[in-house]
Amino acid sequence: MTLLKAAIIGGGNIADTNHIPALKQLSEQVEIVAICGRDTGKARALADKHGIANAFDNTTEMYRQCAPDLVVICTPNNLHYPQAMEAMDHNCHVFCEKPPAISAQNARDMASRAAQKGLTLAYNFQLRQTSEWALLTRCQTDGLLGETYHIKAQFLRRRGIPGWGYFTDKTMQGGGALMDLGVHVLDLALCALGYPMPDHVLGNTYDFIGKAGGKGLLGNWNPQKFDVEDAAMAYLSFPNKASIMLSASFALNTQADKDRNLEIFGSKGGVKLFPFTLHTEVAGELADIQFPYLEEADIQLKNTAAFLDACQGKPSNVCTAEQGAILQEIVERIYSASS
Amino acid sequence: MTLLKAAIIGGGNIADTNHIPALKQLSEQVEIVAICGRDTGKARALADKHGIANAFDNTTEMYRQCAPDLVVICTPNNLHYPQAMEAMDHNCHVFCEKPPAISAQNARDMASRAAQKGLTLAYNFQLRQTSEWALLTRCQTDGLLGETYHIKAQFLRRRGIPGWGYFTDKTMQGGGALMDLGVHVLDLALCALGYPMPDHVLGNTYDFIGKAGGKGLLGNWNPQKFDVEDAAMAYLSFPNKASIMLSASFALNTQADKDRNLEIFGSKGGVKLFPFTLHTEVAGELADIQFPYLEEADIQLKNTAAFLDACQGKPSNVCTAEQGAILQEIVERIYSASS
Amino acid sequence: MTLLKAAIIGGGNIADTNHIPALKQLSEQVEIVAICGRDTGKARALADKHGIANAFDNTTEMYRQCAPDLVVICTPNNLHYPQAMEAMDHNCHVFCEKPPAISAQNARDMASRAAQKGLTLAYNFQLRQTSEWALLTRCQTDGLLGETYHIKAQFLRRRGIPGWGYFTDKTMQGGGALMDLGVHVLDLALCALGYPMPDHVLGNTYDFIGKAGGKGLLGNWNPQKFDVEDAAMAYLSFPNKASIMLSASFALNTQADKDRNLEIFGSKGGVKLFPFTLHTEVAGELADIQFPYLEEADIQLKNTAAFLDACQGKPSNVCTAEQGAILQEIVERIYSASS
Amino acid sequence: MTLLKAAIIGGGNIADTNHIPALKQLSEQVEIVAICGRDTGKARALADKHGIANAFDNTTEMYRQCAPDLVVICTPNNLHYPQAMEAMDHNCHVFCEKPPAISAQNARDMASRAAQKGLTLAYNFQLRQTSEWALLTRCQTDGLLGETYHIKAQFLRRRGIPGWGYFTDKTMQGGGALMDLGVHVLDLALCALGYPMPDHVLGNTYDFIGKAGGKGLLGNWNPQKFDVEDAAMAYLSFPNKASIMLSASFALNTQADKDRNLEIFGSKGGVKLFPFTLHTEVAGELADIQFPYLEEADIQLKNTAAFLDACQGKPSNVCTAEQGAILQEIVERIYSASS
Amino acid sequence: MTLLKAAIIGGGNIADTNHIPALKQLSEQVEIVAICGRDTGKARALADKHGIANAFDNTTEMYRQCAPDLVVICTPNNLHYPQAMEAMDHNCHVFCEKPPAISAQNARDMASRAAQKGLTLAYNFQLRQTSEWALLTRCQTDGLLGETYHIKAQFLRRRGIPGWGYFTDKTMQGGGALMDLGVHVLDLALCALGYPMPDHVLGNTYDFIGKAGGKGLLGNWNPQKFDVEDAAMAYLSFPNKASIMLSASFALNTQADKDRNLEIFGSKGGVKLFPFTLHTEVAGELADIQFPYLEEADIQLKNTAAFLDACQGKPSNVCTAEQGAILQEIVERIYSASS
Amino acid sequence: MTLLKAAIIGGGNIADTNHIPALKQLSEQVEIVAICGRDTGKARALADKHGIANAFDNTTEMYRQCAPDLVVICTPNNLHYPQAMEAMDHNCHVFCEKPPAISAQNARDMASRAAQKGLTLAYNFQLRQTSEWALLTRCQTDGLLGETYHIKAQFLRRRGIPGWGYFTDKTMQGGGALMDLGVHVLDLALCALGYPMPDHVLGNTYDFIGKAGGKGLLGNWNPQKFDVEDAAMAYLSFPNKASIMLSASFALNTQADKDRNLEIFGSKGGVKLFPFTLHTEVAGELADIQFPYLEEADIQLKNTAAFLDACQGKPSNVCTAEQGAILQEIVERIYSASS
Repeated sequence: MTLLKAAIIGGGNIADTNHIPALKQLSEQVEIVAICGRDTGKARALADKHGIANAFDNTTEMYRQCAPDLVVICTPNNLHYPQAMEAMDHNCHVFCEKPPAISAQNARDMASRAAQKGLTLAYNFQLRQTSEWALLTRCQTDGLLGETYHIKAQFLRRRGIPGWGYFTDKTMQGGGALMDLGVHVLDLALCALGYPMPDHVLGNTYDFIGKAGGKGLLGNWNPQKFDVEDAAMAYLSFPNKASIMLSASFALNTQADKDRNLEIFGSKGGVKLFPFTLHTEVAGELADIQFPYLEEADIQLKNTAAFLDACQGKPSNVCTAEQGAILQEIVERIYSASS
Repeated sequence: MTLLKAAIIGGGNIADTNHIPALKQLSEQVEIVAICGRDTGKARALADKHGIANAFDNTTEMYRQCAPDLVVICTPNNLHYPQAMEAMDHNCHVFCEKPPAISAQNARDMASRAAQKGLTLAYNFQLRQTSEWALLTRCQTDGLLGETYHIKAQFLRRRGIPGWGYFTDKTMQGGGALMDLGVHVLDLALCALGYPMPDHVLGNTYDFIGKAGGKGLLGNWNPQKFDVEDAAMAYLSFPNKASIMLSASFALNTQADKDRNLEIFGSKGGVKLFPFTLHTEVAGELADIQFPYLEEADIQLKNTAAFLDACQGKPSNVCTAEQGAILQEIVERIYSASS
Repeated sequence: MTLLKAAIIGGGNIADTNHIPALKQLSEQVEIVAICGRDTGKARALADKHGIANAFDNTTEMYRQCAPDLVVICTPNNLHYPQAMEAMDHNCHVFCEKPPAISAQNARDMASRAAQKGLTLAYNFQLRQTSEWALLTRCQTDGLLGETYHIKAQFLRRRGIPGWGYFTDKTMQGGGALMDLGVHVLDLALCALGYPMPDHVLGNTYDFIGKAGGKGLLGNWNPQKFDVEDAAMAYLSFPNKASIMLSASFALNTQADKDRNLEIFGSKGGVKLFPFTLHTEVAGELADIQFPYLEEADIQLKNTAAFLDACQGKPSNVCTAEQGAILQEIVERIYSASS
Repeated sequence: MTLLKAAIIGGGNIADTNHIPALKQLSEQVEIVAICGRDTGKARALADKHGIANAFDNTTEMYRQCAPDLVVICTPNNLHYPQAMEAMDHNCHVFCEKPPAISAQNARDMASRAAQKGLTLAYNFQLRQTSEWALLTRCQTDGLLGETYHIKAQFLRRRGIPGWGYFTDKTMQGGGALMDLGVHVLDLALCALGYPMPDHVLGNTYDFIGKAGGKGLLGNWNPQKFDVEDAAMAYLSFPNKASIMLSASFALNTQADKDRNLEIFGSKGGVKLFPFTLHTEVAGELADIQFPYLEEADIQLKNTAAFLDACQGKPSNVCTAEQGAILQEIVERIYSASS
Repeated sequence: MTLLKAAIIGGGNIADTNHIPALKQLSEQVEIVAICGRDTGKARALADKHGIANAFDNTTEMYRQCAPDLVVICTPNNLHYPQAMEAMDHNCHVFCEKPPAISAQNARDMASRAAQKGLTLAYNFQLRQTSEWALLTRCQTDGLLGETYHIKAQFLRRRGIPGWGYFTDKTMQGGGALMDLGVHVLDLALCALGYPMPDHVLGNTYDFIGKAGGKGLLGNWNPQKFDVEDAAMAYLSFPNKASIMLSASFALNTQADKDRNLEIFGSKGGVKLFPFTLHTEVAGELADIQFPYLEEADIQLKNTAAFLDACQGKPSNVCTAEQGAILQEIVERIYSASS
Repeated sequence: MTLLKAAIIGGGNIADTNHIPALKQLSEQVEIVAICGRDTGKARALADKHGIANAFDNTTEMYRQCAPDLVVICTPNNLHYPQAMEAMDHNCHVFCEKPPAISAQNARDMASRAAQKGLTLAYNFQLRQTSEWALLTRCQTDGLLGETYHIKAQFLRRRGIPGWGYFTDKTMQGGGALMDLGVHVLDLALCALGYPMPDHVLGNTYDFIGKAGGKGLLGNWNPQKFDVEDAAMAYLSFPNKASIMLSASFALNTQADKDRNLEIFGSKGGVKLFPFTLHTEVAGELADIQFPYLEEADIQLKNTAAFLDACQGKPSNVCTAEQGAILQEIVERIYSASS
């Protein structure tokens, strides 16, 4: 089989520790031909570290010289849209970091372009590849949950405002805790319901702690330059009456530092995702089912493989361009509701 | 001091185990002069058990013979309105079981009548008298929470659809889990915010489990006669941008059988109510504060005492007629949103 | 319906605290007409305590005066056989304490007589009425265990040699830990397999601690008069290749003071009885299922009711005369193997 | 001192990770001169990895060229007998992996040959070298257990059918869970009793799960090629009335994935091996003794050293040829009983 | 046997709930003939409650009318001395509440008088009768501790300043936490060393919290009237170089509300008293020994019985007059050291 | 900035693993120019390992050739005094391992010399740099403890007599558990009180276990050569009535192997250091405050940096020469008291 040629756009930490190692483990399908960063030196160093032939500080040259089959976009959120559009103009499949974009319209345009060009555009929501999510899907398929009607999804940090990068810069990221953390669990919640569009959305965002400053657990942030939300709360109601409660925070006066979980309630059974527990009835009695031997999956590897499957027209559970557009629209409606 | 004369309307379990014992412990202020029930025999038996002089099967005769200063209403929800109005017509203060009524208009009318007559009308939300709630209030007063902006309030049962009484009968109760359980934690959440009226309300109600039947933990209910919600989920957004997430269930496929709690998030500190924990910063470090010696209060006794204080014009933290009207309107808006 | 007339034979603790209270709760079906003990005074006192009309110090007179429909035998093991045979000669149904008898031949003769006379003879193995056993049975019926092929059954005490009664007297009891404790879990294990007769039995009994003396947790026993086994270990193999490992002790240098449990292994699932846990596969993953809301049953009441059902020809899960004969033969074969 | 020359027969995982590292740590006594495997290339690679001079694909050449003083046999069970006999023909001491052989007769012949030639033949039961077993032995020697009369020995896996090697191939291994796992704890149990021959043996083997297939925790096995037992249960009774209950499984619907333990019951004290706990009386009271600082021993190193001690005529607690013959006979009688 | 006649002096709670019930359970040896309190009415009521014939409001009349053989003194500490002396003048044995007195000289005089008159004078340190202390004594006797050389003794309350009685009144009680709580554990520590007199004593007392006021866990105390120590710390060194660290508090900012314990360190073993744990070596390894079945003794009953034994010249482990004098002198030296 | 030149005196483990790595991390301020050990070869090897230019076997030559600005003394305790004095004669700042010296006079002379020469002499008590101690200091500064009046300080090992080095040699070390372990927690306790000199000191030392031998957890020691204390207990009372209880052991029959902790009691709050817990009142209720996110500091790095700050006249919390002299005098008084 001919190897797919991949180019990495954005030479930061996520490329270095997630995407490049995953692609290298899939070397029977794909070869990384180039890294493209803002700074030639850093791009070159990263390429050398991973044994990649080419490094660029602009995409134009990269497309010209390398003609990749696919690109992986690992840049700040506001660049996802232009870079993905450019990549599709070069007939590249696109594996884009989350969130899809910083506006719903952008995400819709990206999906349209992909459809029009017959290309695969997918978003890197790796939690879909956890063993827990695979099991949740099997439980739904096997009918163990009955009809799913309510989901509580949360991704809460107590003092996890990142002290590095652009996470607190609205212009570059489009938002804060909801854009960075909330989208992960929102994507899963939407999956569990079949990715419908809600008919009602209500929500609020807050920035008390981010603007006040204080002790940080992910480095020290600058409260003067903090202009995103440190917490977002939202409620989605769907045409079939299902509902989602969504909570996300960079900073909240809550117990745990990291609390990323979903509770999925169905007519026959309910699931708490981490650790996976199924609440149902067995032999006529109320029962709690645990799964003590779930393996810890390499979720980035699995998600990259799922993207490659999609590129090759195989069945895949990667987040599609259409799903990304729905998710981005919901995010935008939450921000609208809270303003 | 002259003793206040009290009459009990409704001779069921809540009168027998909560209100009558509490009033008897307050015998320096109040004397129970009559019990009024649908069935003379049962009312008479309950009166004898507690050493109460008179028993009636109608209120007309009771008012004529006993001329009480106050009445305690312990009847199904749909009777709260007519009985409270009648009591106020007889110039009685009214201590009414929760919820206030089965419609917002009724609750508003009750509040208007009380104001007009200069009488005390109050609702029996006893959780206000827990040591935990008293401590929460002190923490807010002392500024330990800063500005309170989000509250998660829940009262969840796994399979707690009552197998007795009228709890599953919409005509008599006006609703299910929200009317019976949700109002308790909603009342507390509203207190924590100063009892504002929300500008946006979204919500959904469900009845999958109640209508399907199954194992019960509070006796066995009849799924054929189940016409209320077994679960209600709602989101309230307030003019000052504060928000409440509310969850209540008689039946839900969740872990715990009983999970009644509030999490109250403020700009300086956050509180989990049971067991009371304060998450904040102390001496520049993130800190969790526990209170290992909170006493377990006799919450009915304290709430009845608070009602009597209100009747006598003293400061009191009992739920007022105006608060009851706000709460009832919110309940009605949740039901509207979900239909 | 005409009430069944019951007589109690044996006026000791088990009659006072188990059988009489259970029968009195079933007063719509049965009336206790007499108590028969060795000592008239004690029998009379017990009868008075429970409001029973007649007390006797011999059964002859009791049968003559009271003509009971059924008798409950609560005497030392060596009296079970003669008293049950006499009762059946008077056409009485018999509810006999465990173990059935002190020899296999006696138990077989008792079963033959019951069959011949068309009477119900049953043994009081109450653990059959625990919620856990009912659930085990349902799991088997629902196919959740597949084929059951091995059972570990144990009833171990660390230092539980009774310091009262006849428990250490071989002449009266026929044996020690196996006769008194082991039979309970052996009966359950046999039920789980369909009450087959094993084709191979191996076993050993011990009396090191009983004969040496020491600290007791159920009073102080007399090591000089100790002539039963303090521990019995056995292995049963059945024609279908299923097997049972049985362990019972009054005294053993083991961790827990009381350890009464069964592990039941099947081709599809395995169960630990206390607390009830089902080990199996769900949705393709290894799963452990707990049942947090099993109710604690009144097992004596349920077993007495099951006996009455049997007397009246209704379906019943009480231990039958035939089962008792099989169990007694196995006990005898264990003792033979160990001598 | 002249170094002993050692040859390794069988170039698999057990040689690579256990025996070779242990021998190399004992380089003051022994030198590995050769590795002998089925495949020259793999043997050569292993030799290179460990700095061993010679590699062979047949033993004939190895004996001719290297003339070792001792061999370590790490091949499938059915080769233990011919390879040990051949080694002894070349006057080599033999350190053979467990189990001794696949038939009792073979094991007896091996022991006879060793005795006749004055050579050391020993089996690698490393659990004898755990700190726990050393302490058990000291407790017995110090009289803390009194007379040992019953042992429960088990080595249970829930879904531990190996997905590699020959573990499920009866021709090569002679059996399944009993041959591979059960022999470890059986060896210890026999040690605790002085390695007597039982006068009665009863047992059963099962293969329900192995033949049905399903989720594996040690890789995935092929149920079509599974022809050994997945579980074996047995009971041994000895002339002095002591007894052993033995349970071993590759697959069983039980709680823990790995449960390897012994309970050893004596007249004065009882021991649970892991974690080591002694149940006895101290100062007249029932006491539980824990040993919180037992060191984790390098059990392969210690067992190899014990074998070398035996070769040199020093005291040693390694499993002897005679013990191996007794153990193998018991294994054979368990298989006979279950067929 | 003739019954001993006992009189109770002091009609408070300790008489009502401890001494009188214990004496009544020992009715084969002793009969309570009188209660003597400050208030005739209360004394009469207590006598009636317990079926005691006589009640007095002065001891003179009591001695005249009842001529008791022994008295039990349950009055404030400053009355122990005059009442005990008076009782011995009437040839009565004396069972006196702890502490012995409020000065060392008083305690010495009491001991001299008892010796001179040949009477039993004993103090009610009931902790000597716990099963734990009995076991500690057996361990010492059996040599399991070797030579005892250091003891940490503490009786700490976090906020346990009693809100009733005279506990905070120095004139009546002679001191605070040391007098009321510390003496209990000091008595045990001295027992463990053979009740020697220390050659060096150092100590400090504090009253910060008692004088500042705050939340109380034993009612609310009046900080204005608090003139005793709320905490006392001391170190005792003995001629044989053994030492005791003593800590006692009514109020201390420490974790647990009640922490009453001793750690006793010997050359061969060390004991933590609650829960009783012995740290030593067994079979050459460091070992921790627990005693899971120690019974909970009725310590007042046992101590009263021990006093009666002493009165009758039988062996007894009750605290003697001489021991009480030593203890009181140590207490006095601690107070001196801290002033 | 010119780099400070540092020389290491003493080439043992503490230099290799603590001081040299810390100094190398501070390479912007300091450069290690020489290592001086007893054995040239070992000194050379250590220098090579860490890339240090010079190695010496005597200090004379080292001072002549290298002229360091500061020395770090890592030798046995009895060399601290002569080596520090010599260093200061060469106008070097001195960072000396704990304890300061083996006599109080030596420590006082060292402090005088430093003062006289205007040099920094400091001792390496690294526990001062734990996050817990920093927090304690902040709590005191913020007034959260009120007035600190009692401290329990302990550093206990169960069987931690080192089996290597000079730890059990009184001539070289000056003492045992107190000199090696006790000084760490004594230093902290003195800090918490402002480093006052006590007016009363009482104490005892023991050597029962050290002289008897037995199982060791830090290697095996030689009881014949053991001439230091294995345990030291002391009590310090200060002019302001504050007090310290100090316990230190190499060997003690106690539960934990390592128990290093301080409890610091103040009028408003009390602190347990590990894990840091503050016991106080919040909002009128008794409260326990935990700090779940304290970072684990690199305490040697921080202490070395603090020493360098002191050398440069910056604020520093390193243990000063004067504090070392006070501490050494207290140690000496404890030894005196116990002899």
